[in-house]
Amino acid sequence: MKLALIRSAYMSLRAHQVRPGSRFTGFSRRCLPIGITSSRLSLRAASATSSTGTNPKLTGNFGVQSQKGDESDYDNHVRKVVQSTREAIVTLQKRNPAIQPLLAILQAGEDDSMLEINKKMAVKIGLNITQICLVKECSEDDIVEELLKLNDDPKVHGIYLHLPPASITSRVLNTLKPEKDIEGISDLNMGRLIRGDLSKGFVPPLASAVLDLLENHDTPLEGKTVLLVGGEGPLQLAVQCLIERSGMVTLKSHWSSKSLQAQVMQADAVVLLDVGNMYVPPTWIRPGAAIIYCKPALEKGIALYNVVRSCSRWLKGQEYRPWHLRSLKLQPLTPVPSDLEISRAQIPKPVDQLAEEIGLLPEELEAYGRSKAKVRLSVLERLQSQPNGKYILVAGITPTPLGEGKSTVTVGLVQALSAHLRLNSFACLRQPSQGPTFGVKGGAAGGGYAQVIPMEEFNLHLTGDIHAITAANNLVAAAIDARMLHEATQSDKALFNRLVPSVNGVRKFSPIQISRLQRLGIRKTDPASLTPEEINAFVRLDLDPSKITWQRVVDTNDRFLRKITVGQASSEKGQIRETGFDIAVASEIMAILALADSLGDMKNRLARMVVGTSRSGQPITAEDLGVSGALAVLMKDAIKPTLMQTLEGTPVFVHAGPFANIAHGNSSVLADKLALKLVGQDGFVVTEAGFGADIGMEKFFNIKCRASGLRPSVVVLVATVRALKMHGGGPNVSAGAPLPREYTDENLSLVAGGCRSNLRKQIQIVHLFGVPVVVAVNVFKTDTQAEIDLVCQIAKECGASDALPCNHWAQGGRGCSELAQAVKEAASKPSDYQFLYNTEMSIVEKIRTIAQRVYGADDIELSPEAKTKTDYYHQQGYGSLPICMAKTHLSLSHMPDKKGAPTGFVLPIRDVRASIGAGFIYPLVGTMSTMPGLPTRPCFYDIDLDPVTEEITGLF
Amino acid sequence: MKLALIRSAYMSLRAHQVRPGSRFTGFSRRCLPIGITSSRLSLRAASATSSTGTNPKLTGNFGVQSQKGDESDYDNHVRKVVQSTREAIVTLQKRNPAIQPLLAILQAGEDDSMLEINKKMAVKIGLNITQICLVKECSEDDIVEELLKLNDDPKVHGIYLHLPPASITSRVLNTLKPEKDIEGISDLNMGRLIRGDLSKGFVPPLASAVLDLLENHDTPLEGKTVLLVGGEGPLQLAVQCLIERSGMVTLKSHWSSKSLQAQVMQADAVVLLDVGNMYVPPTWIRPGAAIIYCKPALEKGIALYNVVRSCSRWLKGQEYRPWHLRSLKLQPLTPVPSDLEISRAQIPKPVDQLAEEIGLLPEELEAYGRSKAKVRLSVLERLQSQPNGKYILVAGITPTPLGEGKSTVTVGLVQALSAHLRLNSFACLRQPSQGPTFGVKGGAAGGGYAQVIPMEEFNLHLTGDIHAITAANNLVAAAIDARMLHEATQSDKALFNRLVPSVNGVRKFSPIQISRLQRLGIRKTDPASLTPEEINAFVRLDLDPSKITWQRVVDTNDRFLRKITVGQASSEKGQIRETGFDIAVASEIMAILALADSLGDMKNRLARMVVGTSRSGQPITAEDLGVSGALAVLMKDAIKPTLMQTLEGTPVFVHAGPFANIAHGNSSVLADKLALKLVGQDGFVVTEAGFGADIGMEKFFNIKCRASGLRPSVVVLVATVRALKMHGGGPNVSAGAPLPREYTDENLSLVAGGCRSNLRKQIQIVHLFGVPVVVAVNVFKTDTQAEIDLVCQIAKECGASDALPCNHWAQGGRGCSELAQAVKEAASKPSDYQFLYNTEMSIVEKIRTIAQRVYGADDIELSPEAKTKTDYYHQQGYGSLPICMAKTHLSLSHMPDKKGAPTGFVLPIRDVRASIGAGFIYPLVGTMSTMPGLPTRPCFYDIDLDPVTEEITGLF
Repeated sequence: MKLALIRSAYMSLRAHQVRPGSRFTGFSRRCLPIGITSSRLSLRAASATSSTGTNPKLTGNFGVQSQKGDESDYDNHVRKVVQSTREAIVTLQKRNPAIQPLLAILQAGEDDSMLEINKKMAVKIGLNITQICLVKECSEDDIVEELLKLNDDPKVHGIYLHLPPASITSRVLNTLKPEKDIEGISDLNMGRLIRGDLSKGFVPPLASAVLDLLENHDTPLEGKTVLLVGGEGPLQLAVQCLIERSGMVTLKSHWSSKSLQAQVMQADAVVLLDVGNMYVPPTWIRPGAAIIYCKPALEKGIALYNVVRSCSRWLKGQEYRPWHLRSLKLQPLTPVPSDLEISRAQIPKPVDQLAEEIGLLPEELEAYGRSKAKVRLSVLERLQSQPNGKYILVAGITPTPLGEGKSTVTVGLVQALSAHLRLNSFACLRQPSQGPTFGVKGGAAGGGYAQVIPMEEFNLHLTGDIHAITAANNLVAAAIDARMLHEATQSDKALFNRLVPSVNGVRKFSPIQISRLQRLGIRKTDPASLTPEEINAFVRLDLDPSKITWQRVVDTNDRFLRKITVGQASSEKGQIRETGFDIAVASEIMAILALADSLGDMKNRLARMVVGTSRSGQPITAEDLGVSGALAVLMKDAIKPTLMQTLEGTPVFVHAGPFANIAHGNSSVLADKLALKLVGQDGFVVTEAGFGADIGMEKFFNIKCRASGLRPSVVVLVATVRALKMHGGGPNVSAGAPLPREYTDENLSLVAGGCRSNLRKQIQIVHLFGVPVVVAVNVFKTDTQAEIDLVCQIAKECGASDALPCNHWAQGGRGCSELAQAVKEAASKPSDYQFLYNTEMSIVEKIRTIAQRVYGADDIELSPEAKTKTDYYHQQGYGSLPICMAKTHLSLSHMPDKKGAPTGFVLPIRDVRASIGAGFIYPLVGTMSTMPGLPTRPCFYDIDLDPVTEEITGLF
Repeated sequence: MKLALIRSAYMSLRAHQVRPGSRFTGFSRRCLPIGITSSRLSLRAASATSSTGTNPKLTGNFGVQSQKGDESDYDNHVRKVVQSTREAIVTLQKRNPAIQPLLAILQAGEDDSMLEINKKMAVKIGLNITQICLVKECSEDDIVEELLKLNDDPKVHGIYLHLPPASITSRVLNTLKPEKDIEGISDLNMGRLIRGDLSKGFVPPLASAVLDLLENHDTPLEGKTVLLVGGEGPLQLAVQCLIERSGMVTLKSHWSSKSLQAQVMQADAVVLLDVGNMYVPPTWIRPGAAIIYCKPALEKGIALYNVVRSCSRWLKGQEYRPWHLRSLKLQPLTPVPSDLEISRAQIPKPVDQLAEEIGLLPEELEAYGRSKAKVRLSVLERLQSQPNGKYILVAGITPTPLGEGKSTVTVGLVQALSAHLRLNSFACLRQPSQGPTFGVKGGAAGGGYAQVIPMEEFNLHLTGDIHAITAANNLVAAAIDARMLHEATQSDKALFNRLVPSVNGVRKFSPIQISRLQRLGIRKTDPASLTPEEINAFVRLDLDPSKITWQRVVDTNDRFLRKITVGQASSEKGQIRETGFDIAVASEIMAILALADSLGDMKNRLARMVVGTSRSGQPITAEDLGVSGALAVLMKDAIKPTLMQTLEGTPVFVHAGPFANIAHGNSSVLADKLALKLVGQDGFVVTEAGFGADIGMEKFFNIKCRASGLRPSVVVLVATVRALKMHGGGPNVSAGAPLPREYTDENLSLVAGGCRSNLRKQIQIVHLFGVPVVVAVNVFKTDTQAEIDLVCQIAKECGASDALPCNHWAQGGRGCSELAQAVKEAASKPSDYQFLYNTEMSIVEKIRTIAQRVYGADDIELSPEAKTKTDYYHQQGYGSLPICMAKTHLSLSHMPDKKGAPTGFVLPIRDVRASIGAGFIYPLVGTMSTMPGLPTRPCFYDIDLDPVTEEITGLF
């Protein structure tokens, strides 16, 4: 193994002092701010010329008075490389001022002068350097460990191994990430060179320098003979391979060959490798022939250039580009099999491949098994200068028991955009609650040939976000009851001694306690200085048991927990009270997860959550309970969106799934933001709002977009012929009974009725926000062409930019291509987005605006309780929060059986509540169930797992 | 790019019919059972000789009458390769009869005769073949997709690309897994060849064949000149590189070169590449020189040999070997920092690297982020013929508030075994409940310099197993209450119609319902044939609300849920009842997870769980509720153990954490089984039993080992000087108060007292099971040398094989090296393991045996309730289950304040309960709390998350 050849040039001379075994972390600290005056480097002290580089002649016993290829060639070339490297850095930094090309030097032992010269040259060029210094006797494991860290560090663009030749083992070489192997010494880079694929890897700088010099020779050398003298092993092969590939013929000789002179005399160019003490008398060289002595100076310049090249490639990887997305083939069957069968028949791409295809870096991914991964929020920082893609919302007409299929349209649309129109696009979906999965059939991953896969992962634990919410929510609940118990059974002094204990004789407040003191207006930090009144105020939250609004949650349909009495064990000393459990997704923490735009923001929102009121009427927060830091810890992974894929292999984020009535019913702000950066400016992010456009979309605009600052480009409004017939006056349907004929036979008048009432109204609602709308008719097999055409015609009459049928359920993305094209066109037009109301309006005025302008109500009517609460919230400073209406989704009005577009009603506001952490006020119009139940025959009867194949059956 | 050269030989002649676009899955179907008569293959039809291979002369216009290197050379060599390949397969299969070397052919378009000949040769050799046939016009994506599947398929040992040259793009080549690239055409394999690392990759068969022939030439060619004629690109370089590396000198010429004749005449050997229609007149060849025409016949044989080589390497990878484990360096600080600080200061190895180091295959791993991964149970099947390692149990003396440190000893011991003694070793630990993490300080990941990292991951959600248990447990609970409600409010007929609904006019039972019918003795499968009585029996579980034993669970310390009343909402129609929540780890499902030995076993246990009793006294199971399939689905990932690592980078399984009183307190059987296979016969698996040896170890032996069939080699009994002093009569301690002087000053008599009572008794208990015991004294800084020596001395007097101090807390594995050595020695001695009781004994006799022989009681005394229950369990056929005592852990007796080794007591049995799914009877001795509470100042006050660095503070 003669690789040492390439490297040995680097090992010599004197060293500056470094602490062996130490690791210098933080690259800014190791940037070398030294200016140097000479860029000329040569290993041969004897041949070194003045720093002006004007003396082209070699001196001493190594001298070669060649016809061409003398020192000046090297010097010029070195200067050229240094110059072009410096320019490349300037260009890079012009494009991206944050970028700092960084060379990492992994060395065993102290600096030698070679290294120092290297470092100086790097600085001259404008390169930063970080040095990892291991002890001279370090083991292979030590080297590998440091290499792995450097490989993973996205700030490092090139790695230079300054190690004894014996340490550069096969394992070390191939641990080195080929993308950072600026010396081209790893097997993969060597293989690339041999095969001729130079676009990705790096070529050994020496080989690269030789070729440069040959190609820049006065006389073109194509077809001519180049003699390689000396050298062997990989380096010689690399040189030979490059020379032959550029059309020259190579011959080889050895320094010891008897026919050396004859061979040199015949050659058009001579490349002298492995020079040592050898030289070639000038008289041997044919006139006009090139002669190249391989010396390290040039090599180093090119190695440094490779760092810049690596950095530039990395940057290029960050730029917007159409993804090279490997879409998965769909071969739809007729009749369409069950959702689970379709999902199982498609093998998902490994999630790390999908991530690579859409431009995520490996370090930004946290895989959870093979087919799902969390994505780190650091992507937002990396891509901050990337323009956002287009932002598309899928909303629906007012839902009926006949279904609309917003999720399937969302999935079908991205399948069409990505896999068929070849546009970067992402779907952002809500994570469904696990509870209903075992209650009543119906998944949330889409359906038919427009699904997120693997659908069982999507519908079950996923990456544990809802479990984290459950744990956080219930920790708050346990803290509330435990605190009430301890306050009820202890004196102020005992409470204070326990809350602020003396640890090793020192008593101090925790940061969370200091926050509470500040809210109480106590500006003290020494526990000993508190007055008895202050102690009382500090230790007693004095929660009013009848005014605790915080409920416990489970992710199970457990109706018996709707109303319960807790604290009945004797250990709780009679502190019983009535409370209840909600389904986990109804937790305020879910709403917070969906609206937070960073970890810090989430933490602040968690701290602000109001759990109840003290007996004196003060709101008590999670931070008052001292639990907000723990909540943030429990939620630290949940804040990262989960990456999955559609049946056609296109990317999907699944993140957060708040209720669409007591909360805002939209997936997370963070997933949308990440996706908008990842698709880039010509890409599309499609997300979905719960329920009809009057509820889910209104909240998407007024709550979610207000929180995120994002502006949608297009709304896709989903309708079905059947549902429109019901809005047009069709009869009611009941589960289990056969569908009335109106829904299975053509009935144009019912369709027209539904279009002219509900569809028209929902289009108008979208236009209130100034956003173009495309109507998607989700086709069922009983729909007639005339019915579909009629819907499209009326939709356009009502102002839709376009209206099209779509067949994604039966055909996948192909069935949605026309819709995708229409969305693309609509998105290219300017949109004139505006909020419906100003948050500075009073709570009542905001509610009235929504009721009148969106629902079509004549007015609103507040119950006395609602009035009192409204006043209380204004008093507490919550008046400027946006409004999250908790209204039935089955009608534009508050009366579920009023289909179409009801008018002439007054909307009753039964109560008004607040989610202060999430940041909205939610007026209750009627009763909202927050805990579903199990029917007599829950669908779990059909669910099974084959213990051998591990296949699930009966899940949807 | 001339790679096509290597491949073009394969593309020609006629094809047999395959369905384009189809994928033949299942390799057995594609094995070719055809016998063929000739092994001779040559691309040149004209030069083919008789099948006996006796005619060595070439004929026709390609003929070469060379001095050496004629056809017979090839023929012989082909025969040799075929023969040795066949023999290699026989050898492989002798060692591992299950192995079937499999070649995958990925082809575009139909078979051609070349492929057919190839396949025939493969069959002759004994190789299996699977063919993936894509359409001729397939895209790069199609090829990549199929390649990825083949890469991932562990049954495929080699991949042969039978594709048009244009399809073999750089992406395709480098998608091909180098380990399966039997033609050596990927960049990585080419790079390996160039650099000379031939131990891992594959060399292009043609190059390999050329070298073989040169090396087997009559006259040794070392130092001689080999002329390469024709050929270019990677193949030529590969040939050249191999020839030069074996000491010959290469010269190159072209077919068109004018000096070809002169060059041929001078060469000692001539290798003719890229032959085409060219030939070299025999008169040119120097006498004695070798001449080699490169033809594909030989190449194919070598390619097939490479499949076998790949298969053999794979097998070798499965064999027992000392791991090459890259241990992480520890640099212990004094004073020892907090657990969290120590954990955070160490960067864990990426879990996929750790997995590779311990011999797991990539496809056996399901990563959850960077530092933890689930391991698939298929490993058990793959390593079934691997002998188990030694099985070490860490148990303790009777616990005191002063602590023993079993977990730290477990972790320290594996750190010592793996990182210091360089023996394969694994720790198998319990997953801690998340609830107490936020209640009272104290992690479960070990402590000091003997920890599992990252400790916050260990202590928080981990991979979601406890969340899955919570979901499964609570689904059962919701199903119970909902079923009672539906039964109370519906007629038999209505229930039957709903439970067995007519779907599209067809009514049928689900498999779970048929199981219930069979338990009821109804052997019918047609719903219409049931009599009214049978319908009544089938639809009514008729659960007695007062006899429901199933509780709900949360993983939160929520004391107010200990006793609650549910069903108080009006929607539950007055069906209120009292029940309660336990902490999640107290669920029977956790005990099942710990004892199950396969997915099927877990599913059966889940189905058998008894949730209560009907009014007629029949046990009602989860399967009666119809929920067992859904439970298995919820638990399908939880059954896979989670791989983590210690501070020194050695492997740890974390899996299951059942309570140590109402359950058996041991981590999972499956983790132990997996680990025992992975460490191999000279390796060690160290696991830990909860509480003192009298409880945790007794259950480990009588319950866990009975379930698993595994036999322990050594017990490590952990003691501390302080705890022994308390057993020797030292004063009580109370939290917060300073320690009494007895515990901080030397006190040999108290130490001796503790050793001669509790330590001696616990050693005796271990010996009851016939297993050697090593005592580990977990050293605290206040312990004196005399105290430590005394413990060791008495321990040995009491029969311990050895007794040693250990300092892992302060020093990591190094502090445990002597213990590790002692354990290794003890494990090398034969052990004489036996159970304490036969399960066929009556329940009472089994309880008495444990009480008398383990605890030292005079007798037991059953309460009337306990007697009734015992009779009931015998009646129901549960009498032969093992016993899981629910007794205080603070004393060998039932009286927590009796330290040392109490005698002269009668053990009262208050009640007897059963976990039928888990498979044990648990007698209650006293009251067991199954739901902890939060103190006045829970430790969540100190827990915080830095939103910028994402660092957690205050967690332990």
